[in-house]
Amino acid sequence: MADKAQTRLEIKTQGEVVRKLKAEKASKEQIDEEVAKLLELKAQLGEDEGKQGFVLKTAKGTRDYNPKQMAIRERVFNAIVGSFKRHGAETIDTPVFELKETLMGKYGEDSKLIYDLKDQGGELLSLRYDLTVPFARYLAMNKITNIKRYHIAKVYRRDNPAMTRGRYREFYQCDFDIAGQYDPMIPDAECLKIVHEILSELDLGDFRIKVNDRRILDGMFAVCGVPDEKFRAICSTVDKLDKVPWEDVKNEMVNEKGLVWPRSGSRPAGVPAERKVKGGADLAQKLLQDPKLSQNKQACAGLADMKLLFTYLELFRVTDKVVFDLSLARGLDYYTGRSTRRC
Amino acid sequence: MADKAQTRLEIKTQGEVVRKLKAEKASKEQIDEEVAKLLELKAQLGEDEGKQGFVLKTAKGTRDYNPKQMAIRERVFNAIVGSFKRHGAETIDTPVFELKETLMGKYGEDSKLIYDLKDQGGELLSLRYDLTVPFARYLAMNKITNIKRYHIAKVYRRDNPAMTRGRYREFYQCDFDIAGQYDPMIPDAECLKIVHEILSELDLGDFRIKVNDRRILDGMFAVCGVPDEKFRAICSTVDKLDKVPWEDVKNEMVNEKGLVWPRSGSRPAGVPAERKVKGGADLAQKLLQDPKLSQNKQACAGLADMKLLFTYLELFRVTDKVVFDLSLARGLDYYTGRSTRRC
Repeated sequence: MADKAQTRLEIKTQGEVVRKLKAEKASKEQIDEEVAKLLELKAQLGEDEGKQGFVLKTAKGTRDYNPKQMAIRERVFNAIVGSFKRHGAETIDTPVFELKETLMGKYGEDSKLIYDLKDQGGELLSLRYDLTVPFARYLAMNKITNIKRYHIAKVYRRDNPAMTRGRYREFYQCDFDIAGQYDPMIPDAECLKIVHEILSELDLGDFRIKVNDRRILDGMFAVCGVPDEKFRAICSTVDKLDKVPWEDVKNEMVNEKGLVWPRSGSRPAGVPAERKVKGGADLAQKLLQDPKLSQNKQACAGLADMKLLFTYLELFRVTDKVVFDLSLARGLDYYTGRSTRRC
Repeated sequence: MADKAQTRLEIKTQGEVVRKLKAEKASKEQIDEEVAKLLELKAQLGEDEGKQGFVLKTAKGTRDYNPKQMAIRERVFNAIVGSFKRHGAETIDTPVFELKETLMGKYGEDSKLIYDLKDQGGELLSLRYDLTVPFARYLAMNKITNIKRYHIAKVYRRDNPAMTRGRYREFYQCDFDIAGQYDPMIPDAECLKIVHEILSELDLGDFRIKVNDRRILDGMFAVCGVPDEKFRAICSTVDKLDKVPWEDVKNEMVNEKGLVWPRSGSRPAGVPAERKVKGGADLAQKLLQDPKLSQNKQACAGLADMKLLFTYLELFRVTDKVVFDLSLARGLDYYTGRSTRRC
């Protein structure tokens, strides 16, 4: 009963938060989020609270889309699919859930965010976490080695939702992949061309597309004296450079990830310790000439490819928006080569 | 270990089934289904069987769609959406899962087929079983009383899959609903016009759309002496008239559902005991004049509406394909009035 009293108190406080926001004419998203919290608290009180115990809401971290929002989605998807098709891609579809074992061991630390289905007899299933692993399963199952495919579908992550920032537990991914053997960097350049095309058509304002190559990062880690077994952990910390200050990143590397700070001088000459480094073919060229980094085979391969990539991007006329950014890293285990992110 | 030996034997037998089908050049669907059974057996053997314990398959009752199949889907959806839009409908979207309590008590016996999500802390969730209950939740939550909306999305049922007959555990529903107050039968006639339009455009061959009204069935049950509390159970048996012979239906009514067979003569004159009865406005008129059925208020209301419906269908020029069929019944608890089925 003490718990219930506590919940009732929280409902009262939360009710005031909502009323205040409404009085201040806060944004609809902000009000909706606080109302959702209020409804959740009311749900906690359970069904024995009055007649209206039945709560009308969507699951935490999910939302409905009304006709106006759907009209916008349709317009956006048309632009995306149009570009995918112009570039000769086909589409496939896979089920919303996969065998649990298909997803296991693919997402590293993030595996805890996978939604599992209840064991109701039969196979153990999980909701897809992305479209990449189902695509890989599809290719392997059908022994397909060559395909240019897109897949637009919802994926599911039991993350902490931040709905005002558009971070949901159910959300769409629009994947475009080229599987097969090609001359180096040609498919990569085409993917960047497509992203450029779509973002331009959607007219969302100015944008930059960041690219990096895991081999360059790994090579740099090696040269700086990061032990092999810490590459992934340190990489996922580097990924935070665009969100938190350098001091916090350094702190996480040393105190959480147990990195012994490299002796000064081990750093490649082209890379200042505390700043994010960006550029184009010029930056790749500069790093290739670095006396330390140029000794690392992996880094050289990555940098040579990066230079080549920018040659193609030049031909596609998209170098104005694509940036080679050393601070770009991704946490997932299956990224081995180039990675891209729009910002 | 005995179990494993048994499974190995079953794998051997099933392997022969597959080989035989291939030798006979059986249909791809049939072979695929038997291969799926084989893979499932192999999965049962578990991971300690050799190196390749990892099974590449989709979850039971689900499938992938390759680019050719997706091209067909796109063509079909375009025809459907085109018709929905011509009739002035908007679209909405809702999450793939709902609070478990939102779905509870809506599907009668079929509730056991709902997929639940594992309790990983937080709310108890279930995958949507149809698009109707989420739509009702959406209307109630947003206090919407008037909307003409369509919703095309996948739904989930832990049914016994019969993949050769196209019966899957994950499948699309294309819902079109008109919510609000209108003159009787006008929205109903429009829905039938839309189904007619879509099936004609898809050019799938000849078709018939069956319609009936729960009130007519209920009235008929009452007149025949079926007790009120058995209406639903008997109704779901009537629903089988198009799948099994009359003797089996009668047998289920009497022996399983405990119906005391009505005395002869209680049956409305227009309805022969053992045959399925079909017609149009003429059949509604004939039943309205039946001395027994015309005494039942519910049945009369249903029959009057059916006559009115056919007046509008005449204006829409679709009476060639729409049939008033007394054998059409639906099992779900939320059907109260008219029901439609394509066949």
